[in-house]
Amino acid sequence: MRDAYHEELDSIGEGLVEMARLVGSAIGRATASMLDADLKLAESVIAADQRVDDLQHELEARAIALLARQQPVATDLRIVVTSLRMSADLERSGDLAQHVAKLARLRFPQSVVPHDLHATILEMGQLAQRLMAKAAEVIITKDVDLALQLEQDDDEMDLLHRTLFQHLMDDRWKHGIETAVDVTLLGRYYERFADHAVSVAKRVVYLVTGEHADDLQAAAPGPVESA
Amino acid sequence: MRDAYHEELDSIGEGLVEMARLVGSAIGRATASMLDADLKLAESVIAADQRVDDLQHELEARAIALLARQQPVATDLRIVVTSLRMSADLERSGDLAQHVAKLARLRFPQSVVPHDLHATILEMGQLAQRLMAKAAEVIITKDVDLALQLEQDDDEMDLLHRTLFQHLMDDRWKHGIETAVDVTLLGRYYERFADHAVSVAKRVVYLVTGEHADDLQAAAPGPVESA
Repeated sequence: MRDAYHEELDSIGEGLVEMARLVGSAIGRATASMLDADLKLAESVIAADQRVDDLQHELEARAIALLARQQPVATDLRIVVTSLRMSADLERSGDLAQHVAKLARLRFPQSVVPHDLHATILEMGQLAQRLMAKAAEVIITKDVDLALQLEQDDDEMDLLHRTLFQHLMDDRWKHGIETAVDVTLLGRYYERFADHAVSVAKRVVYLVTGEHADDLQAAAPGPVESA
Repeated sequence: MRDAYHEELDSIGEGLVEMARLVGSAIGRATASMLDADLKLAESVIAADQRVDDLQHELEARAIALLARQQPVATDLRIVVTSLRMSADLERSGDLAQHVAKLARLRFPQSVVPHDLHATILEMGQLAQRLMAKAAEVIITKDVDLALQLEQDDDEMDLLHRTLFQHLMDDRWKHGIETAVDVTLLGRYYERFADHAVSVAKRVVYLVTGEHADDLQAAAPGPVESA
């Protein structure tokens, strides 16, 4: 009985990893669809989010069934409850990737991002995808050091976000209000996506150590505050 | 034993209602602090979010303890798991209210919102507060009809959000990029706050009926999609 239980627990973990892979791929493809003004790619990212939502519902149902059937306590209980939270983070990340693709679709055949911001947005998209890939790796390996690294990577995202804002606020901004609004939202989407990846990793830290990630690195510099 | 259990369950419900009241008040006061450029009020909203975070941690710890000790099944299990999700929605709403207050603080002594948008932003703030007050009422009364009403109220928020965007995109926009960026973020904060209030109400519908709110009103018009 306990073996079937742990198998089910492992398989929930595998589902979380699959979700992380799907949304990591989604943010990469959404970014490409936007930078290249590729409507077909944008549409495919938007449609693919359904799979992420389905996976979340499936994982939640299984986690709840596990609670009811096996009535885990202590660590096992913590694992199941934490899985529920991670799946919520990942589902939301999928929404954010979808938002990026929807913006690409909305502005097609125009490109959302002016040329002088391509590099910054590309970097934000790549960093977001990398953060999610690391989050998936953290779920698999339960590597606390790697998990804590994500916080530093997130500082990079905050830096890129600030660069974006500096461009926007620069007197030489020549792209008009609509583009400023789009770029503001984009920046927010990437920043939130990264936050969710960090959150997934932090939850693994909590699972492994029983301590909140923030307490483990109280000495490290905190994330930059964003408006 | 079962009585103590249901008392504990009720008291978790009361904690959720308190969280909803705190964040409803926070979004109202954050809006005022911004429209009036009131630094003291903004600071107090920012500081008060700690109480919301503490409440969430407390409720989560108690929900998990309840799962471990009482090992509920069926409806009771669903209630506890759903409480965990509601507390996450409410905590996030508190963050969003805090974001509004931080924007007020960042721009002080300037006002974030130009005069011709005061009325729209005021309405968004009031609607957000009202949505959260209704969500609290839904938690208390478990009134499914009231819960479904929140979806309609949220359509109003989408409408206000579109009004805001129309202002931004209007050729006569004279407030510059910085204000456009601020107003874009503000719009997003209110919209997300409303989404979380709706989500809380939907979760109550699921608890009461066992069905997802969306299925219950498939015939009703869906929310307007926002970029």
